Amino acid sequence: MNKNQSWGGRFDEGPREAAVAYTQSWRYDKALYAQDIRASQAHAKMLGRQGVITPTEARKLADGLERVLTEIESGAFVWKPEMEDVHMNVEARLTEILGDVGKKLHTGRSRNDQIGLTFRLFVADKIAVWRRNVAALCAVLARRAAEHCEDILPGCTHLQPAQPVSLAQHLLAYAWMFRRDVQRIEDALKRVRVSPLGAAALAGATYPLDPQSVAEEVGFSEIYGNSMDAVSDRDFVLEALFCAAAVMMHLSRLCEEIILWANPAFGFVRLPDGYATGSSIMPQKKNPDVAELIRGKTGRVYGALTTMLTVMKGLPLAYNRDMQEDKEAFLDTDSTVDSSLRVMAGMMEELCFCTERMRSACKGGFLNATELADYLVGKGLPFREAHHAAGKAVSLAERWGKGLEDLSLQELQAIDPHIEKDVHAALDYTTAVRRRETPGGTGPRSVARQINQINRWLAAMQTPHHATSSAIADGDSHARP
Amino acid sequence: MNKNQSWGGRFDEGPREAAVAYTQSWRYDKALYAQDIRASQAHAKMLGRQGVITPTEARKLADGLERVLTEIESGAFVWKPEMEDVHMNVEARLTEILGDVGKKLHTGRSRNDQIGLTFRLFVADKIAVWRRNVAALCAVLARRAAEHCEDILPGCTHLQPAQPVSLAQHLLAYAWMFRRDVQRIEDALKRVRVSPLGAAALAGATYPLDPQSVAEEVGFSEIYGNSMDAVSDRDFVLEALFCAAAVMMHLSRLCEEIILWANPAFGFVRLPDGYATGSSIMPQKKNPDVAELIRGKTGRVYGALTTMLTVMKGLPLAYNRDMQEDKEAFLDTDSTVDSSLRVMAGMMEELCFCTERMRSACKGGFLNATELADYLVGKGLPFREAHHAAGKAVSLAERWGKGLEDLSLQELQAIDPHIEKDVHAALDYTTAVRRRETPGGTGPRSVARQINQINRWLAAMQTPHHATSSAIADGDSHARP
Amino acid sequence: MNKNQSWGGRFDEGPREAAVAYTQSWRYDKALYAQDIRASQAHAKMLGRQGVITPTEARKLADGLERVLTEIESGAFVWKPEMEDVHMNVEARLTEILGDVGKKLHTGRSRNDQIGLTFRLFVADKIAVWRRNVAALCAVLARRAAEHCEDILPGCTHLQPAQPVSLAQHLLAYAWMFRRDVQRIEDALKRVRVSPLGAAALAGATYPLDPQSVAEEVGFSEIYGNSMDAVSDRDFVLEALFCAAAVMMHLSRLCEEIILWANPAFGFVRLPDGYATGSSIMPQKKNPDVAELIRGKTGRVYGALTTMLTVMKGLPLAYNRDMQEDKEAFLDTDSTVDSSLRVMAGMMEELCFCTERMRSACKGGFLNATELADYLVGKGLPFREAHHAAGKAVSLAERWGKGLEDLSLQELQAIDPHIEKDVHAALDYTTAVRRRETPGGTGPRSVARQINQINRWLAAMQTPHHATSSAIADGDSHARP
Amino acid sequence: MNKNQSWGGRFDEGPREAAVAYTQSWRYDKALYAQDIRASQAHAKMLGRQGVITPTEARKLADGLERVLTEIESGAFVWKPEMEDVHMNVEARLTEILGDVGKKLHTGRSRNDQIGLTFRLFVADKIAVWRRNVAALCAVLARRAAEHCEDILPGCTHLQPAQPVSLAQHLLAYAWMFRRDVQRIEDALKRVRVSPLGAAALAGATYPLDPQSVAEEVGFSEIYGNSMDAVSDRDFVLEALFCAAAVMMHLSRLCEEIILWANPAFGFVRLPDGYATGSSIMPQKKNPDVAELIRGKTGRVYGALTTMLTVMKGLPLAYNRDMQEDKEAFLDTDSTVDSSLRVMAGMMEELCFCTERMRSACKGGFLNATELADYLVGKGLPFREAHHAAGKAVSLAERWGKGLEDLSLQELQAIDPHIEKDVHAALDYTTAVRRRETPGGTGPRSVARQINQINRWLAAMQTPHHATSSAIADGDSHARP
Repeated sequence: MNKNQSWGGRFDEGPREAAVAYTQSWRYDKALYAQDIRASQAHAKMLGRQGVITPTEARKLADGLERVLTEIESGAFVWKPEMEDVHMNVEARLTEILGDVGKKLHTGRSRNDQIGLTFRLFVADKIAVWRRNVAALCAVLARRAAEHCEDILPGCTHLQPAQPVSLAQHLLAYAWMFRRDVQRIEDALKRVRVSPLGAAALAGATYPLDPQSVAEEVGFSEIYGNSMDAVSDRDFVLEALFCAAAVMMHLSRLCEEIILWANPAFGFVRLPDGYATGSSIMPQKKNPDVAELIRGKTGRVYGALTTMLTVMKGLPLAYNRDMQEDKEAFLDTDSTVDSSLRVMAGMMEELCFCTERMRSACKGGFLNATELADYLVGKGLPFREAHHAAGKAVSLAERWGKGLEDLSLQELQAIDPHIEKDVHAALDYTTAVRRRETPGGTGPRSVARQINQINRWLAAMQTPHHATSSAIADGDSHARP
Repeated sequence: MNKNQSWGGRFDEGPREAAVAYTQSWRYDKALYAQDIRASQAHAKMLGRQGVITPTEARKLADGLERVLTEIESGAFVWKPEMEDVHMNVEARLTEILGDVGKKLHTGRSRNDQIGLTFRLFVADKIAVWRRNVAALCAVLARRAAEHCEDILPGCTHLQPAQPVSLAQHLLAYAWMFRRDVQRIEDALKRVRVSPLGAAALAGATYPLDPQSVAEEVGFSEIYGNSMDAVSDRDFVLEALFCAAAVMMHLSRLCEEIILWANPAFGFVRLPDGYATGSSIMPQKKNPDVAELIRGKTGRVYGALTTMLTVMKGLPLAYNRDMQEDKEAFLDTDSTVDSSLRVMAGMMEELCFCTERMRSACKGGFLNATELADYLVGKGLPFREAHHAAGKAVSLAERWGKGLEDLSLQELQAIDPHIEKDVHAALDYTTAVRRRETPGGTGPRSVARQINQINRWLAAMQTPHHATSSAIADGDSHARP
Repeated sequence: MNKNQSWGGRFDEGPREAAVAYTQSWRYDKALYAQDIRASQAHAKMLGRQGVITPTEARKLADGLERVLTEIESGAFVWKPEMEDVHMNVEARLTEILGDVGKKLHTGRSRNDQIGLTFRLFVADKIAVWRRNVAALCAVLARRAAEHCEDILPGCTHLQPAQPVSLAQHLLAYAWMFRRDVQRIEDALKRVRVSPLGAAALAGATYPLDPQSVAEEVGFSEIYGNSMDAVSDRDFVLEALFCAAAVMMHLSRLCEEIILWANPAFGFVRLPDGYATGSSIMPQKKNPDVAELIRGKTGRVYGALTTMLTVMKGLPLAYNRDMQEDKEAFLDTDSTVDSSLRVMAGMMEELCFCTERMRSACKGGFLNATELADYLVGKGLPFREAHHAAGKAVSLAERWGKGLEDLSLQELQAIDPHIEKDVHAALDYTTAVRRRETPGGTGPRSVARQINQINRWLAAMQTPHHATSSAIADGDSHARP
Repeated sequence: MNKNQSWGGRFDEGPREAAVAYTQSWRYDKALYAQDIRASQAHAKMLGRQGVITPTEARKLADGLERVLTEIESGAFVWKPEMEDVHMNVEARLTEILGDVGKKLHTGRSRNDQIGLTFRLFVADKIAVWRRNVAALCAVLARRAAEHCEDILPGCTHLQPAQPVSLAQHLLAYAWMFRRDVQRIEDALKRVRVSPLGAAALAGATYPLDPQSVAEEVGFSEIYGNSMDAVSDRDFVLEALFCAAAVMMHLSRLCEEIILWANPAFGFVRLPDGYATGSSIMPQKKNPDVAELIRGKTGRVYGALTTMLTVMKGLPLAYNRDMQEDKEAFLDTDSTVDSSLRVMAGMMEELCFCTERMRSACKGGFLNATELADYLVGKGLPFREAHHAAGKAVSLAERWGKGLEDLSLQELQAIDPHIEKDVHAALDYTTAVRRRETPGGTGPRSVARQINQINRWLAAMQTPHHATSSAIADGDSHARP
């Protein structure tokens, strides 16, 4: 006879040991203790307000839960494997402390809506931290960009040098990517921050509950629309994992560039010692391990998204135990995203840019060929013909081992008679960067404007008004490690 | 010598045939012709307004493009494989029509920002249609729910009967899921509807362009922040594919239930003849092929998301040809999502619910056990003890082959002395459903409220104000098939 | 100055704390200690045989490593985070024990080929256990099948009853799936069991090594073909993960059926108490949590495969740190596959089949319609016409609420005049099963033959000859938990 | 009334148009016509041999099918959408040609086992072509390697120069990867080449069929073990897709290197004009589009694997319509893998290696640091100390802007007194490559041995004996385009 478990009443025989080990989740879901207790306290208070339990009972439950919280945070709490999960562990200890009153906590709720609210609080707390970490990385990128508005390097398409750009412009491209990540996280938060408590097992409860007040007590503004959906919805986890996948994808692109640039053929960056490692056999190596690992961990986060999409496919209503897999998929992703963002911000802060190598690399790639074409358009040629003439010039110059700017006026005029002696000014690399002042372009005024935009956005993110208007409280204040 | 291609100026030798076939995209990207022309017309007008070309040239280009559009839609247009993609095909024909003026269209832009805008217009048009189709399915679900507020069936968790719910409640659970899909699509649209035109190849342009006016001309309100990001960003495709994956996941769950319910062991639905097929060898079969295929195609859409996440991982700035894979991944997904939603709406419209089978299935599963537990709580027992007593009652009743409602008062009192003669009223299934009137619960007032909420939301979606405020025009008016 | 790390010689400054935590792997790769030590002992002995070190040094190293092994297994070993990974921890301790001789262990190898061999030994050990566990599950299925050769249930296609089959046949279908899994694991093992030691960092070594003898010492028969491939190949992990994905997919299908069958609408199985759990709110529930979790964990293993495919995409030669992600992806998968197989075997052992419910379910689904069609073919009708006539009969019988066997001879003859009075014998369900004696069919002789085939195959797997011929030693003897 | 379809007998009403379009597969599965006809001919002959139909009928069916084949290949065949799929189209036409005899073809089989055999023949044919194309690419790599045994370049780990290797060694690393792909395809073929015909719908047939003879007739050697497994097994598609994913992953790695090497910072390759494209705006560009697209299409094939893993998860026995998604997933993958391999072989054939740039790049990366460490080990230092000393030397040389070989003897001796005047010989790059003659190393004898091994393996693949012994016939002879 299995006496200890909450649902043991009906069974003649205890679960097999292996099956117990297979199903219990306390080993990882204990990470959610703070959110579980926060949710339970809100539930208890509401039960008291609604008269389902007495005000004294409600206060006892809230205080008892606070004591359990203290025990866990102090390390005094003893986790019991036979209690299966964080929820039963907390409730069992509460009942030890309070006696029969503890058993009233679960009135009007089920583990299905309880875990829903607990996990939503946890995900909201964590992705609010992601949001802040992504913003912090944007701030570093904007700061580094501001240092390098005048430094130019070959901008590539197809990894072939295309046109000179400023290093600031290159770094800002990533800031804009990460800004979208922040927006996506904010959009996801709207759907994470919805309380399912009150849905009970799947059909709603018979007690006079007030789900909206529970939602507000825990800092959410909305409640579920339908009880069956409420307990079987894991869209909020999927959205968080998708946001994570996009963040990692962006990081992987930046890492790829750092890895390329650290290769001596480029030599565009020197890795800070703190973010590189050596080789056990080759003493000269200074390896971009951190950048490689971030790039590699992109796969891990993609994997977690695949996991949860697969889990949810074809599940009938309402709650199914398959969904328990959401915890580890999210916990692992949270740890990956959080550490990757912090480490990347640290690395970008200290990364040393070799601006001389960047500038001299501009010469090799005919990066002023577009300038020649544009110059010819200015002389009245249709674009497609100007482009063709510039192509010929590149072809000749390459054959002679020269840059376009090294061709004489005569040589250039032989290619197209519209060319005049003002051509060499047009072929200057710095000029090429300076002239691109269309909005968002690489020109210095455009870049200054971008830095300003990013900084103003970052500042706005931190004002209380923004936090209120977008209903995003900062998760950290609640999340006790 | 390769004369026909736009970039052939520099090469001595034409590409190998197999490589040409491998790289050309016109076979599938011709689906984007309407958006390409819309974008080009906006670009031409802007060039005219900004004085980069003359007003006459601008008008000629816009008119010539309109003629190309007419040719394509009438079937008169001849696609040329050697023109590689839809953009070159359109421009080449334009130049045939207009002569040298046609060559001026490409001034101040690159294929990188051109394809970006074209594809964003296409994705915006298509997912706006998804949004409407998802809403249409919600409307069907709400209508069918309204017909079945009084019909009850066993609500399951773990696919085990748990508590009786109304069929309306069950159907509405899906309406709420799909409502989140609409919200996600609306959020994604904010990031799709951003014009990259003006970024040129990667660094911005030297002409005095006005990118904001192009964006507004095509119905977008925002432009890119950084030119390098603009041409290498495919977040908008990823977001659309993720929205699609979530829609399909929800559909797969509904399909799973239809498939289960169509099995004679349940017998909860009769498939409309139009949405079932037979067997080549077993004449009695009426197979839920449509539901199975929708469920199966979930995998296909997950696959497309995996594809694009993989493509984008680790790509350095800016545009890389790998990104061309975005078109087919999205086109295939669009076709799957669009047809799956339409077919599902049609099937749900006609699906025949066997409400007698549903009602009688409630008896078998001790669905009133929670009622007994709640009854005992009402008599003063702590919840956990009440739960234990109800468990014992189920155990006994099962042994005797009875329902709980078939146990005599004496038998029940032997289990727990708090039980009194009002117990049998509490054990009634319909009463169980009626009592669950917490917000979003299965009680009839809650269900009526939900139907009302869904319908008001659907109505609001169709008001011009909503369309304006959320900046979502209806894609169809633009998309010419 | 970072003195403790193997590659610290060149750096002025220690790595940042966060970066260190981000890159170190000892927390999880310590699971590979036994394989690391086995590989190092083989390397040391070979160095001694080849005269790179003295025989005494070789013996000291091998003995010292044995002592480290004992320390780890006894729990006396102190893991040092600053030693990064299992390899450095082991080597550092070895040097503490042996002094300078310990530093000679790494002669002629690099961490790149060392980790390659260690991890291949680990993967080989683990998937050899999978192989045995899959076979054990096949044995259970064959045993349960042997008990149920005479019990019939509705065989489904499209989850619609199609033709009666024996329960034995249904269970054996899974045995044949799992048999393919064993074959795939055996094929994968051929490519896992290849030693990369001797490739050194990437280019081979300058010492007179004998890689083949190391391979044989650790029980592998083959060595790498190319040093650069050797250190950057992770195909063996991908193959193992794919094998795992196929195993889990097969398990998920069996779980789906158990979950369906446990629903009272079917009532085909009663879950053993040890493999079911209850509900915290609904006392009557007996939930198939174990089956649900196995099904859910399928997503997790798919996720690990996605992870490693993503990691490896586009990596240049040779070793890149991204590859370190292979460990956790495999470790998590190993734990999932191993426990899922064991738990499933236990559940199948005890699962109670409700054969009466199965038999009576045959009546509801017109499962003898094919018999009628075949009967008509026997009377000379072309198949397609016979099929059409049987379809009509089903249609009528359904309208009248009867089974086909309940139609009178007259009623049947009205449908097709070829029908004679021997028709009712043909419509008997058990007869339908008995007649299907094509190879692999559901007939009793075919089923007995299948059980025999599975059992003979299982017996052959356990003979030493098989192990030798297929070069698969049993991993467990090496793997110390 | 739906008269035309094979399963229409029971239905009162035709399927809705959209549902028909949604479920019909002829548009893509017509690619399988040759295999369908081959399978049907084998079935007809067997029916004749077994006396199920008369020998004359069997001959008529086989001849009629041949005529249908001719009509399809000549383009005369009219595909009828209402016939749903390739199988019904072929059978309907056969019946038009032969009258009632045509209707006998389907005797003793179902569409479930028919499509199983047809698709297995198709997959076997196609992946046998992959196998040959992978081998052809290996042959090109071995040929190019043979041209470059003496050319050296920096071998990288972590994309940092590590040790000099020969270009031959670098190219051969890929040949060994692809050799594993061939082995995997051969292993997969064993499980593809198993005939399911005889399983009928799911339970086996009542006719005296001889499935083994059908298998042999179509060139397979094995038949299914269990009829329910036979019709619901899609492992063979999954294995083929996994093989494809591994091939593409390997190709993506080679493409990444080509893309890097084509950047002027490396300048290690010049792209053949036939495999590069230009830019519409930048005339100087020579973009590695083909390599980028192959790399990008890796995502597409990963997506197809995700698709089918998702489709199969949790499907109950036996056939479910979800499985129909296997066709398009495989067809798209086949087209991608086939063209990618061919294009890659063509590109590698013509790729121009800039061996001078490679050689001079060796100087920049301290690639002889390991030589210095090994030199010191030769002088008696323990490896870890020698490694430390070499690290110091690199650090100094870098500070002074020199290579290690440029340090004077005195300078070197100041770092470690064990250094003597033979040190400069040890620091020579070519010597470093020459000394690495461990098996599979980069030394010239090792490389020659590898080329020999690859070539002998390729030759063995083409002998009829090999084909027989591994039971792999060449798919092409059967596959009519």
